[in-house]
Amino acid sequence: MALKLYSYYRSSCSWRVRIALNLKKIEYQIVPVNLLKNEQNSGEYSHINPSHLVPSIELKNESGQTIILGQSVAILEFLEERYNNVPLLPKDLIKRAKVREIVQMIASDIQPIQNLRVLNEVEVEKKNEWGSFWINKGFEAIEQVLTQSSGLYCVGDDITMADVLLVPQVYNAERFSVDMNKFPKIKSINERLCRIDAFSIAHPKNQPDCPIEIK
Amino acid sequence: MALKLYSYYRSSCSWRVRIALNLKKIEYQIVPVNLLKNEQNSGEYSHINPSHLVPSIELKNESGQTIILGQSVAILEFLEERYNNVPLLPKDLIKRAKVREIVQMIASDIQPIQNLRVLNEVEVEKKNEWGSFWINKGFEAIEQVLTQSSGLYCVGDDITMADVLLVPQVYNAERFSVDMNKFPKIKSINERLCRIDAFSIAHPKNQPDCPIEIK
Repeated sequence: MALKLYSYYRSSCSWRVRIALNLKKIEYQIVPVNLLKNEQNSGEYSHINPSHLVPSIELKNESGQTIILGQSVAILEFLEERYNNVPLLPKDLIKRAKVREIVQMIASDIQPIQNLRVLNEVEVEKKNEWGSFWINKGFEAIEQVLTQSSGLYCVGDDITMADVLLVPQVYNAERFSVDMNKFPKIKSINERLCRIDAFSIAHPKNQPDCPIEIK
Repeated sequence: MALKLYSYYRSSCSWRVRIALNLKKIEYQIVPVNLLKNEQNSGEYSHINPSHLVPSIELKNESGQTIILGQSVAILEFLEERYNNVPLLPKDLIKRAKVREIVQMIASDIQPIQNLRVLNEVEVEKKNEWGSFWINKGFEAIEQVLTQSSGLYCVGDDITMADVLLVPQVYNAERFSVDMNKFPKIKSINERLCRIDAFSIAHPKNQPDCPIEIK
């Protein structure tokens, strides 16, 4: 049985996992969860993911038992430990830490504050300003970290988890009209990454649940 | 030179790192960063942490080079890889993933939305409601995960990173008047953990920068 990925085409956290699965050449089957139709709050999906969030993965372990995991960063770390054919963490301890620092700068300090469920709690006329404010703040810090850590990609010249998180976050930044010219390092690394199949195949517009009018 | 920890007594992310350092018996020197006096935005600290957040750690690597790292979860993973005398991740891959899932449920889905800098952007009369809403939502999900994963602690009978994040988050919950009786698993695990020296020594009230009137 192929690994199942519960995913929503435009969810940046689902996109992270799609990229990693593609990079590692792991076969997977997408099970769409439509956040606009509130499917994440259905009884059925609540058993898969008690946080009512995408993504989740479902797979069998060696003894045939079904394993379900939520939280994109935890899933990335799990995939890294289980499928190390294409490593997404460097070997060097300090570089690994730098990758994870950038990962958390996105996964904790930017994405959760600008995502749909939090945005729903912000007044209508302030939504765009709110999203753009937090992304700008986060990107200013990441741009500074990248001046030290980056080569072709976020940390050195190999693709890592940090890159896996960067591309979906830049996509969100563009949706909130963030001026990417203020972040030349992020912008150029993102452009380089977007030309790679594993990233472009995982793009929202290439997902089975992407509405035709958006493709 | 002992490891330096840039910390604020009441920052739950700083507290996470203090607990892990205590559990692993790593010597450290606290450098207080007063968030209420805006010291995180000073020019000096901006070089240490471009996100203007605590905690950060500073240490020398084997060749004597100064290493600076931000982001509490990245720091915990780094400490885990460098000082494995007291492991905070289980050996089993699935259990490791479960620990990291709970870690991210707190580090991404709860703490960043209710922390000081986000709260500063929320209207005064809504601050308490905002914090309590997100903590309740997150704790409902964690309580459900714990029914499957927990033993004496969050995942089985050994202390893990998930526990390291749980205790400071429960402290925040109490500050936002969250009714902990709704979360019996979280409550009892938290009480068990609070009796352990590594956790209690790391408590805000036992920090050098805790104001006397709060101690």
